[in-house]
Amino acid sequence: MLSKAKIKLIRSLQIKKYRQQEQLFVVEGAKSVVELLNSDFTIDLIAGTGEYLSSLSAPGVMLAEVGKNELESLGLFQSNESAVAVARMKPNDALKPEAGDFVLALDDIRDPGNLGTIVRTADWYGITQIVASPETADFYNSKVITATMGSFTRVKIYYANLEEFLPRLPSRHVYGAFLEGQDVHTVDFNEGGMIVIGNEARGISEGVGRLITDRITIPRFGHAESLNAAIATAVICDNVRRRSR
Amino acid sequence: MLSKAKIKLIRSLQIKKYRQQEQLFVVEGAKSVVELLNSDFTIDLIAGTGEYLSSLSAPGVMLAEVGKNELESLGLFQSNESAVAVARMKPNDALKPEAGDFVLALDDIRDPGNLGTIVRTADWYGITQIVASPETADFYNSKVITATMGSFTRVKIYYANLEEFLPRLPSRHVYGAFLEGQDVHTVDFNEGGMIVIGNEARGISEGVGRLITDRITIPRFGHAESLNAAIATAVICDNVRRRSR
Repeated sequence: MLSKAKIKLIRSLQIKKYRQQEQLFVVEGAKSVVELLNSDFTIDLIAGTGEYLSSLSAPGVMLAEVGKNELESLGLFQSNESAVAVARMKPNDALKPEAGDFVLALDDIRDPGNLGTIVRTADWYGITQIVASPETADFYNSKVITATMGSFTRVKIYYANLEEFLPRLPSRHVYGAFLEGQDVHTVDFNEGGMIVIGNEARGISEGVGRLITDRITIPRFGHAESLNAAIATAVICDNVRRRSR
Repeated sequence: MLSKAKIKLIRSLQIKKYRQQEQLFVVEGAKSVVELLNSDFTIDLIAGTGEYLSSLSAPGVMLAEVGKNELESLGLFQSNESAVAVARMKPNDALKPEAGDFVLALDDIRDPGNLGTIVRTADWYGITQIVASPETADFYNSKVITATMGSFTRVKIYYANLEEFLPRLPSRHVYGAFLEGQDVHTVDFNEGGMIVIGNEARGISEGVGRLITDRITIPRFGHAESLNAAIATAVICDNVRRRSR
């Protein structure tokens, strides 16, 4: 059973203001909750069906058995799910990348689905550090967490003003995709660097654009005007790893 | 002014049953409507703000001036938009690819956003033929059309049973992504072929899996369990074009 107070808390965490106030966020879905348990996040509570809870190894974590109807009534993003967890947000600590590391820099990625997919893709390509502009979607939004498919536990995000943060980094390279840059198939990615991904509609902002040292381009073979931001991230990451293997 | 009957029609086209009955679909947003005008689709109607309509060159097309409130009341997918069009669906004609062509085969892509992003990505990479299983999301769903960012006008989709259609194609190659295939960075894509993309949760189905001649793998450098279906499509297409330039 979940207390009325806990139900109210979980529902309120769909809103950023309450997440920031409580420093808590919601993780939905059986698989994501297992990833959460295997991570270094502090877990406040797991609510799930009896069958699901009995499958978990979660010493020291508060468990609450709930029915499927009760889970659905929590107003969650996914339906037909068997579990939900409440966990503590991590502090917004500055990244300290070393020379040779690749870091993604998100310049106003507004869509939560795009941000979640970018986090999942970064994790696939072994890029575990992301710096995001303050206008980027909130990492702890349920839609973002769900779209990461568990990768939120392995990728560190830091919200900061990119124009202030980028110049402080050890790498000489700040890569950014433009229409007239070097073909990403031939770029030498051996020294690490920042990879800037621009806003879905406007691309890379003028201020951040001035900090780009290496303009790169994903070659086009057809007629679409542009690529989705998460798609562009993936194609760049694939070429980064292929060229620095 | 839009008549009550037209408003009712436009709203009904959010539902697949009515789209199929009327053989009509809705295109939302200023840019997408311009792409529609420049395509070979037959347009039934364009409704938009006076300012937008006066910017169009659309001889022979029925135009209806509407206010922003009226546009929003149509229950559209996007808000703050200046136009909506109704156009005629194309018949579900069989693809007739030639040897050397690349064709995407979608094995139950259920999410409309994923399908739209795949269409946009295919267009970027010059792949204009898609065959999709009957369980794949409907191409004419507004969310799909919007996510294609205009590429719905340049990419042809054909819904068919993949197990029946694939064996009839001229190319010897049917590529499919699995965990233990050949590294996509080294595959020889010179002869064209089908590129099968599996369902978001289950991957490629057993029946279609039996038809795969070339098992390929996107190399992983980190820890995510899988990639989003549209992301995997993009990475494969980028390697296809890089290796067959």
